Amino acid sequence: MPVLRTPGRNADAVAEMTVALLMAVTRFVVAGDRDVRAGTMFGETLPYQRYRAWQVAGRTAGLVGLGAVGRAAKWRLAGLGMTVIAADPYATDATHSLDDLLATADVVSMHAAVTPETSQMMGSDQFAAMKPGAIYLNTARAALHDTDALVAALESGHLAGAGLEHFEGEILPTDHPLTAMDNVVLTPHIGGATYDVESKQAAIVVADIKAILSGGKPLHCANPEVLE
Amino acid sequence: MPVLRTPGRNADAVAEMTVALLMAVTRFVVAGDRDVRAGTMFGETLPYQRYRAWQVAGRTAGLVGLGAVGRAAKWRLAGLGMTVIAADPYATDATHSLDDLLATADVVSMHAAVTPETSQMMGSDQFAAMKPGAIYLNTARAALHDTDALVAALESGHLAGAGLEHFEGEILPTDHPLTAMDNVVLTPHIGGATYDVESKQAAIVVADIKAILSGGKPLHCANPEVLE
Repeated sequence: MPVLRTPGRNADAVAEMTVALLMAVTRFVVAGDRDVRAGTMFGETLPYQRYRAWQVAGRTAGLVGLGAVGRAAKWRLAGLGMTVIAADPYATDATHSLDDLLATADVVSMHAAVTPETSQMMGSDQFAAMKPGAIYLNTARAALHDTDALVAALESGHLAGAGLEHFEGEILPTDHPLTAMDNVVLTPHIGGATYDVESKQAAIVVADIKAILSGGKPLHCANPEVLE
Repeated sequence: MPVLRTPGRNADAVAEMTVALLMAVTRFVVAGDRDVRAGTMFGETLPYQRYRAWQVAGRTAGLVGLGAVGRAAKWRLAGLGMTVIAADPYATDATHSLDDLLATADVVSMHAAVTPETSQMMGSDQFAAMKPGAIYLNTARAALHDTDALVAALESGHLAGAGLEHFEGEILPTDHPLTAMDNVVLTPHIGGATYDVESKQAAIVVADIKAILSGGKPLHCANPEVLE
């Protein structure tokens, strides 16, 4: 029995979540929304002063990993007027080494799979190598970074903010320091949660079933030897 | 004494806030962030089921008003893979009438100035004319819509969500029905709050001062007759 796979099915959805987190972090959407709902818009400072941002157009986004999600993020970020660079030892069109990317990017966005090589790849040295005031995004997996090192880089003010979609153990303890930070946006692993992913996944499987039934080869089969 | 103006200074900033609100509304960023911080990610439903979204790429955005902000929003939304249409009786390249736009767009985004002609232009008839499940964005001024009619269209489920940057009287009462809704994102009139706007504004004024000092005509003068 052939086992079919659906690689890249959620690339567009996760890339759009990457844009959502980037814009929510830079424009203080979560903290601003909380102030409006709580009636605390006007305090010691005006919201216009409190939530001063920098524009993303004209700045540089650095993608760590240039697989299906990285590529889907690439054209969207370029479409917002950003310069997009990428580090990926397995992509011939990656533009930068990781070190050069960290030193150059205003936004570092993680799009790598977790492997022994990438696990904890972002630690205190790597966060320190990022530009002061840079933003860190991770819509992939928390295992790619050392969370304590990230918290320290945010607490020291070296990083301006972060957007995170995934947490070790799939949930963040309510007393975790990240939950008290105004310059982070935390979403509950919903990057792939679109209706479009469901139809796309079905279409990929159906195309391969049709290929098999008509005597052809499926594009995405986990055990192609059974078809020989 | 010539009085200089800086039209369009905040167009890019407000257009980026439009993208921020669109993505925050479609991807449930505020509600998701609240669940992560409160430790309520996993309840009766999984977040993946609770926050199911539709992708913006491939959908249609309708811009009401095609001035400096509308145009700055236009290329960004197209850059995210959206089809962008526009209604504006004063722009020769507007593609649609307001009626046709409301019937066609998956996202309706307001970019008009408040005039006797546009004040309250979005009322219950206009919200009813929008597609079921559509999203309404207003990063311009609350006076463009009837807030009660918007609340009714959200409460009935006809509209899927809304992103609002401005409120009548500049603040929302804490008992306002919008403050209890999970499918709206409310920001405190910070669309123009970027450092880039400040430099751009200064550059526009300086260019016109230089023009005047060198005997030329400024581009943006409120009282050009004093220069005759």
